[in-house]
Amino acid sequence: MTEQQIFELGDFTTQHGATLRGAFLAYTTYGELNADKSNAIVYPTWYSGRHWDNEWLIGTGMALDPERYFIIVPNMLGNGLSTSPSNTPAPYDRARFPAITVHDQIAAQYRLVTEKFDIQRLALVTGWSMGAGQTYQWAVSHPEMVERIAPFCGSSHTSLHNKVFLEGVKSALTADSAFAGGWYGQAWPTTGLRALARVYAGWGFSQAFYWEKEYEKLGYTSLEDFLIGFWEGFFLDGRDPNNLLTMLWTWQNGDVGLTPGFHGDTEAALASITATALVMPAEKDLYFPPEDEAWAVSHIPNAELRVIPGIWGHFAGHGSNPKDTEFIDTALRELLAKPGGLS
Amino acid sequence: MTEQQIFELGDFTTQHGATLRGAFLAYTTYGELNADKSNAIVYPTWYSGRHWDNEWLIGTGMALDPERYFIIVPNMLGNGLSTSPSNTPAPYDRARFPAITVHDQIAAQYRLVTEKFDIQRLALVTGWSMGAGQTYQWAVSHPEMVERIAPFCGSSHTSLHNKVFLEGVKSALTADSAFAGGWYGQAWPTTGLRALARVYAGWGFSQAFYWEKEYEKLGYTSLEDFLIGFWEGFFLDGRDPNNLLTMLWTWQNGDVGLTPGFHGDTEAALASITATALVMPAEKDLYFPPEDEAWAVSHIPNAELRVIPGIWGHFAGHGSNPKDTEFIDTALRELLAKPGGLS
Repeated sequence: MTEQQIFELGDFTTQHGATLRGAFLAYTTYGELNADKSNAIVYPTWYSGRHWDNEWLIGTGMALDPERYFIIVPNMLGNGLSTSPSNTPAPYDRARFPAITVHDQIAAQYRLVTEKFDIQRLALVTGWSMGAGQTYQWAVSHPEMVERIAPFCGSSHTSLHNKVFLEGVKSALTADSAFAGGWYGQAWPTTGLRALARVYAGWGFSQAFYWEKEYEKLGYTSLEDFLIGFWEGFFLDGRDPNNLLTMLWTWQNGDVGLTPGFHGDTEAALASITATALVMPAEKDLYFPPEDEAWAVSHIPNAELRVIPGIWGHFAGHGSNPKDTEFIDTALRELLAKPGGLS
Repeated sequence: MTEQQIFELGDFTTQHGATLRGAFLAYTTYGELNADKSNAIVYPTWYSGRHWDNEWLIGTGMALDPERYFIIVPNMLGNGLSTSPSNTPAPYDRARFPAITVHDQIAAQYRLVTEKFDIQRLALVTGWSMGAGQTYQWAVSHPEMVERIAPFCGSSHTSLHNKVFLEGVKSALTADSAFAGGWYGQAWPTTGLRALARVYAGWGFSQAFYWEKEYEKLGYTSLEDFLIGFWEGFFLDGRDPNNLLTMLWTWQNGDVGLTPGFHGDTEAALASITATALVMPAEKDLYFPPEDEAWAVSHIPNAELRVIPGIWGHFAGHGSNPKDTEFIDTALRELLAKPGGLS
């Protein structure tokens, strides 16, 4: 089910004016596109995630049912499968890889959806974390195409606090001199990656998650076992440091207000969304707190805020807590039953 | 007012069995001890803080009024003024400095209070953050002496999440190879200190503090100006890395249940507190959340929980937000007017 396809973008010029020559998107699809091409869903990846990391929310009998929908999972530019610092030849390789905006991500995905599949409308765009950011961007960039959106545990506009959290993540990685300004060779900055992992660990789950030792439900036998086994293992699983920093830049600079035509006006960009929106922050998400999404929802014409209850924090949207998965799946089912809004 | 005094501890044996030979406490006092020695207050320092950093809460007309009380501010062991990695001769110098528990801190302070001043009871012990941890420890170690406690933005028992936050702080510093396992010389690991500062920045204040750009009230002109001017400046202000790690260990291992006689039973230690307690977590403190202190208060016989409202997060107790300072000062005044509890 997870076989990877490649869509050639050719010369892809970024919003900031760099041109990636021979750029491509790696993607996968689930289900079949129906005759009138009305059953397509786009489900972008999250920070450092790969297309297979989205599969927990796709399945027969679930809202994202491949027997009913045609689900496209495009890998983000920078994630190591699509065009990224780690797979781009010189001179745009590694530390020289250009800045990619969320707008760029959706420009590339739009070409995949329209050129490869000739799809003109999307029943739904949904995603977790940076996938949520891409979801918002789809709705702003293409109100004529996107019928419904369901961003979960992510934002339309990276908050100042979220940027600071990411500064900590970045500075821990780059404090390792083996990072060498991005020009490390075979010897990766593993000390920096482990430091990054430990910084991330405090943010990914809530205070109460740790208090209740919920990590034991994931099979970890102590706090340190969780920090090494889950967190260090996560970031040492072949995730290239320059790729991580490219995606981090995209995240830090996320803002639908930077869509051409909106001149930095985030509220105007949100107000332009015509899709039926169901926005799901997690109750105890430490870097995408519910109040930020309440603010976003207050500016979208047809939007509902539905907070994912519980103590898993940001990782409520990671697919590892069955209760959270059920909550999200139920919400997507309800959303898909509602009329979609097109401009 | 801030002249520093030295109290010689002599050979100080830690809870874990190391002996610091020629150990000492640096401290300062405000006001005069009265004839019956009934007006003494102990106000310990916080993580990396020095005695002068506590002065914002002391002043004529305030609850901690030097015209009425005799206020002792002992510097924590490890803070660079009292015995610390940075001022201890070999072989217990720098990276070899032994582990200091919160219990050790109070054992040293107890000697200062009783041997130097012959004080047998304390009208109040209060402190911010790690100062709050020391406050709880005073009440558990010496119920016969401590009439009242007011720990603010700190805990009796470092939570698992708080330990993880500190792991991120520590790993950012030590990722810098210039740290050299603590054996750095004149060339300090400034990259690591800057990384540590950026990690800390996300935790010290709340999400809403950044959303509202409250840092502008402190005179910072942009987010980056705040990260450099406040945070990097804070940790590059002569704070020795080994000292920071010594205090961090103390913090991570804070638990009144480790007081001799309690065998790790934190709840029993809390239940043994006889002091009248007013516990003040900050509403949006990200590493000492109010629910943790609600838990502590539920186990202390005579305790009130009073949450500091607002968006300054942990730094509500730092003295830089007048509204929070007024809240804490008012609470201390009320507490000092109540009968104290002695065992």
